[in-house]
Amino acid sequence: MRTLKLTVSYDGTHYVGWQRQLNGLSIQQLVEEAFVPLLGAAPTVAGASRTDAGVHALGQVASLNLDSALPAPAIQRALNMRLPEDVRIVGAVEARLGFHARFHASGKSYRYRIATTPVLSPFDRWFVWHVSQPLETARMQRAAAALVGRHDFAAFQASGASIVGTVRTLERVEVIDAGGEVRVEIDGEGFLRHMVRTIAGTLTEIGLGQRPVEAMAEIVAAGDRRLAGKTAPALGLTLVSVKYGDITNGGLG
Amino acid sequence: MRTLKLTVSYDGTHYVGWQRQLNGLSIQQLVEEAFVPLLGAAPTVAGASRTDAGVHALGQVASLNLDSALPAPAIQRALNMRLPEDVRIVGAVEARLGFHARFHASGKSYRYRIATTPVLSPFDRWFVWHVSQPLETARMQRAAAALVGRHDFAAFQASGASIVGTVRTLERVEVIDAGGEVRVEIDGEGFLRHMVRTIAGTLTEIGLGQRPVEAMAEIVAAGDRRLAGKTAPALGLTLVSVKYGDITNGGLG
Repeated sequence: MRTLKLTVSYDGTHYVGWQRQLNGLSIQQLVEEAFVPLLGAAPTVAGASRTDAGVHALGQVASLNLDSALPAPAIQRALNMRLPEDVRIVGAVEARLGFHARFHASGKSYRYRIATTPVLSPFDRWFVWHVSQPLETARMQRAAAALVGRHDFAAFQASGASIVGTVRTLERVEVIDAGGEVRVEIDGEGFLRHMVRTIAGTLTEIGLGQRPVEAMAEIVAAGDRRLAGKTAPALGLTLVSVKYGDITNGGLG
Repeated sequence: MRTLKLTVSYDGTHYVGWQRQLNGLSIQQLVEEAFVPLLGAAPTVAGASRTDAGVHALGQVASLNLDSALPAPAIQRALNMRLPEDVRIVGAVEARLGFHARFHASGKSYRYRIATTPVLSPFDRWFVWHVSQPLETARMQRAAAALVGRHDFAAFQASGASIVGTVRTLERVEVIDAGGEVRVEIDGEGFLRHMVRTIAGTLTEIGLGQRPVEAMAEIVAAGDRRLAGKTAPALGLTLVSVKYGDITNGGLG
């Protein structure tokens, strides 16, 4: 038995998200089934982040235990032969036995893209939320500062979610004016469901001048989902990378 | 009667190219038909470049004569309401009566993208040719220098094409190493059918070490299509922009 760490890049447009669902095709199902010719059966492949339907990934991380002696690069090539072009295994390395992509993750980075141009580029249509109005990024950046650090993010989780612990730590929330496009980049130890999209939606309302900059700190303090902004659409969100400590045989303590 | 200049951006993946064809849907047909609610009939819209099936455009230029008094920005909005998301009118301005996007073009810029990474990013799958091997860009750049200036490009036109005049002037042929991706950028006064793609294919063979750098000058001198490299696939090509002199009422002499 050995454990592999896979890095997976995908255009999430046509999928129900990473995690297997009854109502459609998931990335997890595709990756698991791509193992069938190699292993004779589909293993369970654990992803670091569920990623909602329509959310993209540059560096989703997944792990699995397997018995095959096939070297990791050969497994990567075989999987990419089977997978559709919108799902690619961009890395496959040995990890310490028992490495788990979700349980051992120490942080994740997300990026949310917002187009402010009157017309949305056809090349961005599946990857960028089209707000089509200028955003005051300086205001958004000041509001974003209220999110950095250890806070109760109850106000930013999906309505109806009933996670007990809603305290999370965000290391960086940056608002970047990229000329016709605003990018919100967030690094954190962990995230609640819809948290990045609700932060992006709230920041956008502040950037449009619909709410004062100070609203952000008040929303965090109140912890009430009804006070935060709209959940920004899934298509603008990309899971950029997942962070781990040492995952080799020397690591994972 | 007035003349409009449209700038059109499109993802060419699902189309037979700019120009109307019997075998499928063209961008020209879509744009012409989008005028029907405004004008009562579809006008003829002339494009600066035909662009082959699968070729993309950031700044295709098109022109048309029309009788409507509707301001250009309102026309742009109405067209974008009708057009699919992969075709966008990114600019609409008044031009001097009789301005013609093809006949009055003084130059065009194209970009060809080549991925050299073992795995192609899912986000590039419709926009980049996947060569998946490292390219020696310094060799490609030296070979590209042989193309700059006024030359007979007969060796680089589509086989079977029977254009009489094959002399064209290229102002710039640049090979850019963008880390995992090589971009060939070409500015010229005019182009033959498949010329950029055949140049990209030949440069790639030189970058792979399959041909000497000096081959490029020899191919140009010989003027024989059989000596040039393979025509690189359409999906890697983008029409970036089209250049004009003064197109306002003071211009076009």
